[in-house]
Amino acid sequence: MKKDISELRQDLVSGDWVIIASRRSKRPEDFLKNVSSRQKSPVALCPFENPGKSGHGKAVLIYPNLKNHRRDVGVNWELQIIPNKYPALSDKRRKVIFSKHGAYNVVSGVGHHEILITRDHNKNFDGLSPIKSFHVFRAFRERYLELSKDKNTAYVSIFQNWGPRAGATVYHPHYQIIAMPVVSPHVLRSFLGSESYFKKHGYCVHCAIIKQEKKDKKRIIFENSGAIAFSPFASPNPYEVAVFPKKHLPFFENTPDSELESVSSALREALRLIKKNLKDSDYNFFIHTTPVKGKEKYKHYHWHIEILPKFSTSGGFEFGTGAMINIVDPDEAAKILRGR
Amino acid sequence: MKKDISELRQDLVSGDWVIIASRRSKRPEDFLKNVSSRQKSPVALCPFENPGKSGHGKAVLIYPNLKNHRRDVGVNWELQIIPNKYPALSDKRRKVIFSKHGAYNVVSGVGHHEILITRDHNKNFDGLSPIKSFHVFRAFRERYLELSKDKNTAYVSIFQNWGPRAGATVYHPHYQIIAMPVVSPHVLRSFLGSESYFKKHGYCVHCAIIKQEKKDKKRIIFENSGAIAFSPFASPNPYEVAVFPKKHLPFFENTPDSELESVSSALREALRLIKKNLKDSDYNFFIHTTPVKGKEKYKHYHWHIEILPKFSTSGGFEFGTGAMINIVDPDEAAKILRGR
Repeated sequence: MKKDISELRQDLVSGDWVIIASRRSKRPEDFLKNVSSRQKSPVALCPFENPGKSGHGKAVLIYPNLKNHRRDVGVNWELQIIPNKYPALSDKRRKVIFSKHGAYNVVSGVGHHEILITRDHNKNFDGLSPIKSFHVFRAFRERYLELSKDKNTAYVSIFQNWGPRAGATVYHPHYQIIAMPVVSPHVLRSFLGSESYFKKHGYCVHCAIIKQEKKDKKRIIFENSGAIAFSPFASPNPYEVAVFPKKHLPFFENTPDSELESVSSALREALRLIKKNLKDSDYNFFIHTTPVKGKEKYKHYHWHIEILPKFSTSGGFEFGTGAMINIVDPDEAAKILRGR
Repeated sequence: MKKDISELRQDLVSGDWVIIASRRSKRPEDFLKNVSSRQKSPVALCPFENPGKSGHGKAVLIYPNLKNHRRDVGVNWELQIIPNKYPALSDKRRKVIFSKHGAYNVVSGVGHHEILITRDHNKNFDGLSPIKSFHVFRAFRERYLELSKDKNTAYVSIFQNWGPRAGATVYHPHYQIIAMPVVSPHVLRSFLGSESYFKKHGYCVHCAIIKQEKKDKKRIIFENSGAIAFSPFASPNPYEVAVFPKKHLPFFENTPDSELESVSSALREALRLIKKNLKDSDYNFFIHTTPVKGKEKYKHYHWHIEILPKFSTSGGFEFGTGAMINIVDPDEAAKILRGR
């Protein structure tokens, strides 16, 4: 990219424009400060050390710690999933009620909001062993399949907020799963974008993105047999990382163990590089996958993970236009992430 | 709204869903802390005290201070507009170049990026006199009309980032104007939403929103002869405020003086209430108006201002789904904004 002028790049899926304006910073390293806002909380005060006693309610899934032969899984657990004490959507009522407020559509807040907690207070995803990080994704898949059975579930969102700047209120590493009764137009547009690309070109837009990144090489930060992690050419945010299964897999919940292992492993490595090379930045990651119903319509899609380290502040321009200004050239971002 | 369960409300224009989950907080006042991140910078070090010497380049518009009869407008000015020293888009090249990078569309970063500065280091918009706040909007309109003449301009974005948490790097009150060579699909979708509502119902979606707010009354925070400010029923963000001209005016740049005065006055009052009742929170505000070209197509639209006080942190759920979780019921937000 020529350094004397910024460049607008259009996202292949959403059609949104990103202004890559790297001239606004002298060096991309200049942003690498004050981005970690976490303060370790003492284990003794942690509500997630003994989730059964945290007032969140009974665990919906427990993976016992297999290395420990004591029987009491309430103590010897590797990970567990509990209901959120302060749910955004509640499973206390069974029926979704659609109503009107004047011209507005209103839907009762029925759904599920769960938290996955891993055992070690001081080991976030990047510090888990390969098998334990795979187990986190196996548990995501298990809950996705279970929550999909609820006829009210239209979409399942799986994500981590790591650090207060990313929206986390508890220090202990945890992940969230929200099952919603509606599908947001925002995600629907991704599928429309993916569908229209497929119709026009005869292949998957995300496979095309991966192909481009493999051709260009310089934005790849990690690759293994089944997955690839890179700084996307049209990254809306500084140091954003995408993690894809290499195979065209439309549906997260149908991912075979081998691919799930590759993806969890690539995510672990990407988060390790963010910790090491982006000064332990706070971040969000989330899974982008298709809605629960009408799967057949979405075969053109390719599920993946997006990681957003907390380096950007959206301002009036971004909120007002939906176009993003990214002050770090993705080529440079990848270099820094890899540790040069 | 029933307090035992959250509620999903659908935006009438975008179709996006907002989860109003006020149960997650005991009292909406609990969020009123640590939201102002500004530190007054000394006048002596301020680059905007004498913009001509700040290295930003020659002013493109100066309103002299009429109360002061000295001739040197370089010193005696009320407001001035200068080019941004670190532009996201540059006017140094005249030609927009459309190119391809593999499957990607790429456009050279040609456009305009200007800063409007008001004279008083310590008076933000809320503290301006009625006439001076009107002058700011008159200057916005003047620059909008001027920048629209550039054949490269497809969209003009006008906004303020107030405080570092909102993305501002300089303390001295200022506003930004960016002229872009493309229209972002995000804003285009607003016009599509507005158009489809108009086709279906025969009237403007924003007029319908205003009518609903006037009927419900409780979310209105200020009203004068020509403008209205309220906490929208489907607010995606805590304490969000919308300011509308009451008349159906599609195009910001064609707004008559009387309406422009009403709107600037209502904005001033809304920002004064945010300062007073939301602990002087940082915020972004921006103007939502139609693209520059093909005006005839957008007559169904109704320009307005959105103010986003910095109370929300988007997390993995919001980034991943586009649905927002708003933990402050807009009814409560309006009460707090009005000072109860």
